Amino acid sequence: MTLPLDDRGLLLGDGLFETLLVVDGAPVWWGEHMARLRRGCVALSLPEPTEDEAKAAARQVIDDGAGHPRAALRLTWTAGSGGRGLDRPSMLSPRLLASLAPAPRPTKPLRLAIAQVRRNAGSPTSRHKTLAYLDNVLARREAQVAGADEAVMLNTAGEVACAAAANIFWMEDGEVFTPALDCGVLDGLARAAVMARAAALGAAVREVRAGAEGLGRAEAVFLTNSLMGLRPAATLDGRHLKKPPLLDALAADLP
Amino acid sequence: MTLPLDDRGLLLGDGLFETLLVVDGAPVWWGEHMARLRRGCVALSLPEPTEDEAKAAARQVIDDGAGHPRAALRLTWTAGSGGRGLDRPSMLSPRLLASLAPAPRPTKPLRLAIAQVRRNAGSPTSRHKTLAYLDNVLARREAQVAGADEAVMLNTAGEVACAAAANIFWMEDGEVFTPALDCGVLDGLARAAVMARAAALGAAVREVRAGAEGLGRAEAVFLTNSLMGLRPAATLDGRHLKKPPLLDALAADLP
Repeated sequence: MTLPLDDRGLLLGDGLFETLLVVDGAPVWWGEHMARLRRGCVALSLPEPTEDEAKAAARQVIDDGAGHPRAALRLTWTAGSGGRGLDRPSMLSPRLLASLAPAPRPTKPLRLAIAQVRRNAGSPTSRHKTLAYLDNVLARREAQVAGADEAVMLNTAGEVACAAAANIFWMEDGEVFTPALDCGVLDGLARAAVMARAAALGAAVREVRAGAEGLGRAEAVFLTNSLMGLRPAATLDGRHLKKPPLLDALAADLP
Repeated sequence: MTLPLDDRGLLLGDGLFETLLVVDGAPVWWGEHMARLRRGCVALSLPEPTEDEAKAAARQVIDDGAGHPRAALRLTWTAGSGGRGLDRPSMLSPRLLASLAPAPRPTKPLRLAIAQVRRNAGSPTSRHKTLAYLDNVLARREAQVAGADEAVMLNTAGEVACAAAANIFWMEDGEVFTPALDCGVLDGLARAAVMARAAALGAAVREVRAGAEGLGRAEAVFLTNSLMGLRPAATLDGRHLKKPPLLDALAADLP
């Protein structure tokens, strides 16, 4: 399958995506991912995919790619073909694309570096998984050039926002912190699961607006996303971090 | 021609584009556009297209689309196919795509509206024409919903940056102003031509960091880009503007 060259997802980043974990052929958190995709459509004024077409596209690539015990299913929802320039056509005909790739659970220690590239706190796109993900690509690249594996992104107000492809949590004096969603943060499904679990354990996560200095005082840092679940960081800008306490308990609801 | 679905331009906005005016089959400012595309490649750490392949791709679509006295040639340079996720493959094989569309000179009065969506002053992408152009799409859409034709975008620091698809200039007390490039502004070719012309006329343009209130005091506002040249704005957020003095003189070097 290929894509027409006038697709607005390609030309302008006009569209959204979701990445789902597929375990033994079954997508995890299907309903939650679809709900988030629909919220993204509202934010971007795009028509929403139907449940049936999304399920059919997912089923097709999962069946084609049978054999991966853990796989990443990507659903891409572009604004479809459009005329020249920024203006959308009066009738949008979005395109749904699906792909599957192996997604073994990462095991090596995770090294983080704070990137120079900032998250745009002045755009609704910072709260959604859009096809305009180049800032995250550049942040990841910065981290790798610095000898790390993943970037920590501050937003344009200088507040800790997220990792390039994950939500971020940190621990200080026995408390757990994560950036508030309005820092320009994706409403992560693993983030929500960890927060619910922490609350049930009596260790409610504090959603905060914090500068990089907050992270600098952290004893432990961990990332979450749908694919890897919860992953502790070994270092941040070269500083060694502790293994987060309660780690296994916090990850108990993650696939 | 179609595109493989694993192209990073499509999936992540990982790439660049240029839009050139083509008059009677001849691209205008070819060398300048290619130089800017190469600067974008450096900023994004992408390999650069060769002059020969770019010329061949342009020639092909210009020949195929013969008959438009004024046309828009779009060159799209994607990071090419890549693996799953943000990490680029160790060897990039970028793709060059070209397309042509009629681009008649717009004649109706231009109504501007200041958009809520901000330009990311914390990312190098704001200085380049990248495939991650969704913020501009959303800004344009906001302007249209407000009954205008084009959006004025402030950056995340609240400074006037540009229009969604053009550079912006304004006039106050006989002086001409435009945002400095480090406000998160594309280094526009028509912008540069107008600035050079203004300097030759003894009316040097002042590159400034100015908030929206600066624009609010403007007597006249005009936009520039490669396709439309210089275009005066009739209104800004509903306020009527004057026709800029020296208009024809400033536009003298534009195609």
